[in-house]
Amino acid sequence: MADGNQGLGLQLRSLVTTDGDLELSLAKVPIPKPGADEILVRVEATPINPSDLGLLIGPADLSTAKMTGEGDEVAFSARIPPQLMRMVAGRVGQSLAVGNEGAGVVIEAGSEAQHLVGKTVAVLGGAMYAQYRLAKAADALVVHDDATPKDAASCFVNPLTALGMVGTMRMEGHTALVHTAAASNLGQMLVKICLQDGVDLVNIVRSPAQTAILKGLGAKYVVDSSAPTFMDDLIAALSATGATIAFDAIGGGKLAGQILTGMEVAAVQKGGGAFSRYGSTTYKQVYIYGGLDTGPTELNRAFGMQWGLGGFLLTYFLQKVGPVETAKLRQRVADELKTTFASHYSAEISLTEALQPDVIAAYNKKTTGEKYLINPNKGR
Amino acid sequence: MADGNQGLGLQLRSLVTTDGDLELSLAKVPIPKPGADEILVRVEATPINPSDLGLLIGPADLSTAKMTGEGDEVAFSARIPPQLMRMVAGRVGQSLAVGNEGAGVVIEAGSEAQHLVGKTVAVLGGAMYAQYRLAKAADALVVHDDATPKDAASCFVNPLTALGMVGTMRMEGHTALVHTAAASNLGQMLVKICLQDGVDLVNIVRSPAQTAILKGLGAKYVVDSSAPTFMDDLIAALSATGATIAFDAIGGGKLAGQILTGMEVAAVQKGGGAFSRYGSTTYKQVYIYGGLDTGPTELNRAFGMQWGLGGFLLTYFLQKVGPVETAKLRQRVADELKTTFASHYSAEISLTEALQPDVIAAYNKKTTGEKYLINPNKGR
Repeated sequence: MADGNQGLGLQLRSLVTTDGDLELSLAKVPIPKPGADEILVRVEATPINPSDLGLLIGPADLSTAKMTGEGDEVAFSARIPPQLMRMVAGRVGQSLAVGNEGAGVVIEAGSEAQHLVGKTVAVLGGAMYAQYRLAKAADALVVHDDATPKDAASCFVNPLTALGMVGTMRMEGHTALVHTAAASNLGQMLVKICLQDGVDLVNIVRSPAQTAILKGLGAKYVVDSSAPTFMDDLIAALSATGATIAFDAIGGGKLAGQILTGMEVAAVQKGGGAFSRYGSTTYKQVYIYGGLDTGPTELNRAFGMQWGLGGFLLTYFLQKVGPVETAKLRQRVADELKTTFASHYSAEISLTEALQPDVIAAYNKKTTGEKYLINPNKGR
Repeated sequence: MADGNQGLGLQLRSLVTTDGDLELSLAKVPIPKPGADEILVRVEATPINPSDLGLLIGPADLSTAKMTGEGDEVAFSARIPPQLMRMVAGRVGQSLAVGNEGAGVVIEAGSEAQHLVGKTVAVLGGAMYAQYRLAKAADALVVHDDATPKDAASCFVNPLTALGMVGTMRMEGHTALVHTAAASNLGQMLVKICLQDGVDLVNIVRSPAQTAILKGLGAKYVVDSSAPTFMDDLIAALSATGATIAFDAIGGGKLAGQILTGMEVAAVQKGGGAFSRYGSTTYKQVYIYGGLDTGPTELNRAFGMQWGLGGFLLTYFLQKVGPVETAKLRQRVADELKTTFASHYSAEISLTEALQPDVIAAYNKKTTGEKYLINPNKGR
């Protein structure tokens, strides 16, 4: 193998110490040997998703960041505020590999997986911020020949979550849906999926520029929460679509409650029946799947008694639908990788660069439209 | 009939005017004639439940209360703050009868219900704050001969809601439950039901005096949210019982979120598995069924992704379990009316008294342990 580390590969590690420090470093780990049904992937593209940042950075205070060493010996540390240590109590002292998903080229394979050597594959399951990653051949998603590792880097988290939203909508008996932070990579995928599938989607964005992006993709219902007419616009879109389920990436603040209130107002307007102080009989659901606002969720409960709020996580959705449906969804992602499921990155960085305080500060902001891609073999 | 109103009966009405006033008055309505399968009940006991106050008083500002007239001509009014008019928009201009449940004696019956004349029955379904109430014979719950209307006044809302909590717990796959405002009439019933049924119950109360009441009934797990050790006490009780579903009468503030957090901590302690930043795989549910605190619900979301929060309403529970199971639950209430389902009242008032500003101020406080009973035929 063309590798300067004599059988070792770099793997990004995140550690919370008993003293309350978050430490990031590059471990040198032996390059594993594939078993009969396994493949060894040289990882070339792995995104930094909001869902990675929880494990990577957690509640560390970046204003206390320190860096030591350079090159492969680089290490980063920052303090975790004492009152937030409880959030990470379960991981203290464990040096954890990071990176939910990524893609690369198969450079070695076991006897049953020889046909995959040289193929570009996408892999889900952690420890992707590494030069090399062992995987079960059956778990890898083989992409079409014209797709690069960069094209395939985000095959799972965003595409399957977006498909999972539409799937959950159908499973739970709703006919249209709402999405917040809707100009994100995931949001743009969801717009395209819904256009293809003929599902009405209410997109909630936070600026006129984001409205323009989604309108450019053909989105029909886009409401801007920064507009003074937001609640009226939202109610109008909810009335027009009949959406009674929402997926919220924001989490904190009043938005989840505003959506439930808007759905209730739309239901009462539509129902036109006798007043009930328990509200309409229409069941309204909001799932929180992200925490772009880490503050508390605030509900004024002005939406009757037929409502639910809960967490949404891709893993649990895939468990519910089972392996056959999951395989279908994965194949759809591979087939539409460069169209429906195309991702955009604002920067491509190496493992070493991923540990620089200024770079960390940039990707930890989770700005919509700003997304970082790690190439663990960049320059190697 | 022994009635001084020449074929008319008094019925309490609540009206929101277009000008933003809440008006309470006593309407004189014709005493109805029972059809073949109907009964006429002389109502003698009907409770003021928190669930009645929403329709009766709503968001009116009691500091603006005015009273006019006296005797049967009494009328009460109070202003509704303009910003809260939206909550009652659906009922403006409608003179609404009030009172979810109550009991009395059958004084007339149709040809198919003659066997009920003279029986004490309990009725659910609104318009109970009235001297007379027509009901379908099949809907009335006939209580045992030794039970008075006062004993039977609260046969439905509290007893069936308490039974509905245990039923929901079972239907949704949980094995123990949590209840807040647990020293209420409903809470005391729930303690007795759980002791009888062998179900572990974590009672959350707000004072040492309330702890003493529940301990006196034999409650095993009582935690006091006013104690400095509340979260630790709660986690210990959740660990001991494995309760993963809660029913919350408070609604506003941090309590619902604290319960979810406590359940998550208990689940993580029990699981002992690898750290996951998505939290435990244990599903945790809190249902809000009351709004003793009308402020916003605040969730810090420090409880992973496997959680749900929603509304809980008796009506929907009974629809889910269907008429056969509902009939069984009603019969259990009749059979255990003077034991498990005994209610306590702090005052018994007439319809006229129910419209006095000082009396309204008292019963609208919803203080645990303070409960008002209306006897619409008091002194008549």
